[in-house]
Amino acid sequence: MSTDDRRQLAEKFQELHRGPKLLTLPNVWEVAGARVFEEAGFDAIGTTSRGVAASHGYPDGEAMAREEMLAVVKRIADSVSIPVTADMEAGYGATPEAVAQTAAGVIDAGAVGINVEDGRNIMGDRTGAQLADLALQIEKLRAIRDTAATMSVPIVINARTDVFWLEVGEPEDRLAHAVERGNAYVEAGADCLFVPGVKDRDMIARLVDELNGPINVLAVKGSPPIRELEEIGVARVSLGSGPYRATLALLKTIASELTGLGTYRSFTEESVRYGELIDALAREGETHIDYPSE
Amino acid sequence: MSTDDRRQLAEKFQELHRGPKLLTLPNVWEVAGARVFEEAGFDAIGTTSRGVAASHGYPDGEAMAREEMLAVVKRIADSVSIPVTADMEAGYGATPEAVAQTAAGVIDAGAVGINVEDGRNIMGDRTGAQLADLALQIEKLRAIRDTAATMSVPIVINARTDVFWLEVGEPEDRLAHAVERGNAYVEAGADCLFVPGVKDRDMIARLVDELNGPINVLAVKGSPPIRELEEIGVARVSLGSGPYRATLALLKTIASELTGLGTYRSFTEESVRYGELIDALAREGETHIDYPSE
Repeated sequence: MSTDDRRQLAEKFQELHRGPKLLTLPNVWEVAGARVFEEAGFDAIGTTSRGVAASHGYPDGEAMAREEMLAVVKRIADSVSIPVTADMEAGYGATPEAVAQTAAGVIDAGAVGINVEDGRNIMGDRTGAQLADLALQIEKLRAIRDTAATMSVPIVINARTDVFWLEVGEPEDRLAHAVERGNAYVEAGADCLFVPGVKDRDMIARLVDELNGPINVLAVKGSPPIRELEEIGVARVSLGSGPYRATLALLKTIASELTGLGTYRSFTEESVRYGELIDALAREGETHIDYPSE
Repeated sequence: MSTDDRRQLAEKFQELHRGPKLLTLPNVWEVAGARVFEEAGFDAIGTTSRGVAASHGYPDGEAMAREEMLAVVKRIADSVSIPVTADMEAGYGATPEAVAQTAAGVIDAGAVGINVEDGRNIMGDRTGAQLADLALQIEKLRAIRDTAATMSVPIVINARTDVFWLEVGEPEDRLAHAVERGNAYVEAGADCLFVPGVKDRDMIARLVDELNGPINVLAVKGSPPIRELEEIGVARVSLGSGPYRATLALLKTIASELTGLGTYRSFTEESVRYGELIDALAREGETHIDYPSE
């Protein structure tokens, strides 16, 4: 893909955050799944770092090497025509320079968006160490913005704050804390603010009001449905590792059925046929092969 | 893993084909899924070449490079303690020497079994070109057996004939054709004969009677349940790409729900929690982190 094509795709992705329509962004971890969502008509897709990591045998938290993660991003971006945004955890870098390299890798991989989180996955730590230093996080976001400008690809920087997600501080202080961080991130060049861990409608509405940029919420059990999120003014809803974890739950169901009844309904009643699978992978102009119907 | 450990694991896997108990072998394409089946108590797992290929964006038919396929086999074998068998399609090689290299790669990756098929994925071709030349296929199986002996790891060679799968020749000739091929493969050193495309109980029973070795059937919609297969004397039942295609069907359901009702039930009602996912990936002695409950 030429730089011009990448720039245009990035601009298209930027626009999807600015209209009145909510952007529903499914998160994927492999190629055929990306094609399923593209075929279903979604305007863009994201990766799920947790899904990519787990499917490769790693826990979350940048245990999977940056280059390995970027290889998956590239495979997915190569396979679809819609914008792809890459979940790069905390940016894979202790310094703004290192995070800028990650952003350059994301652009080289063909993605036109990046998620960067300020959390460190230390649940229940009440010392405040769960969140990255604010000044450093701002420098990292600026470095990503500068890299994108230098490379002429205006990627969507989705800055995530984990104030709610990691239950930082006292509950009553979290809104103000998230707003302080989020607005600092917008000023540093973020295009969208991702606040996972909030499913209360009123709290989401207050975030929309107080944050100076488009906001992204994570859909979990009990989250307001898409129509309500759109009414409130949420710009983007993503699914995180939800679909990935649901596929693992399906594998558990398959395992239970095999060891219990010894039958095959859970993987044969709802299925995608071989031919359909091949069609999903084939791009225009490629030959299709007929496969047996099972 | 030492050569001794590999040899013992291969011997254990050989034994699982020889008792009265049917070996149920789920096929996986990624690591967390492999761990799910190991945790559920299965004695062994296989890979699905179609699932691995599709999740990496390739159609079937060795479109995915051998080394890339073996890297996935290694990740999976590294992650579990039970025997893993690798689906290597037609063996990735035009010559016995090339197929022997594939077998060596499988052993190096830590797997203790290999699937090698004689079909070429040319459906509906009635010229006979769908199946590999029998004499050459026999040489390839011998080369695998020799490689395993040289490396002192007695891997289970699961020789697949696609007579039924690719609907080769006239229906009434297929049993005799499959038996001819299967028994030639046993003589060449195969440990188990895989005959996908047969779900009729009586036909399976005839294959069990006439083949001079343990047989593997593929569980599809309408296959006899595990208890019946065991009664007939089938040694092994595998799932092929069934579970993989079922996960893609789930993604289609998720897509439909999002674009239709705009709700999240299909990926939040049946799920695996973060903590459980991490536990599934963690091995003994590793630290567990508490994650938010969503």
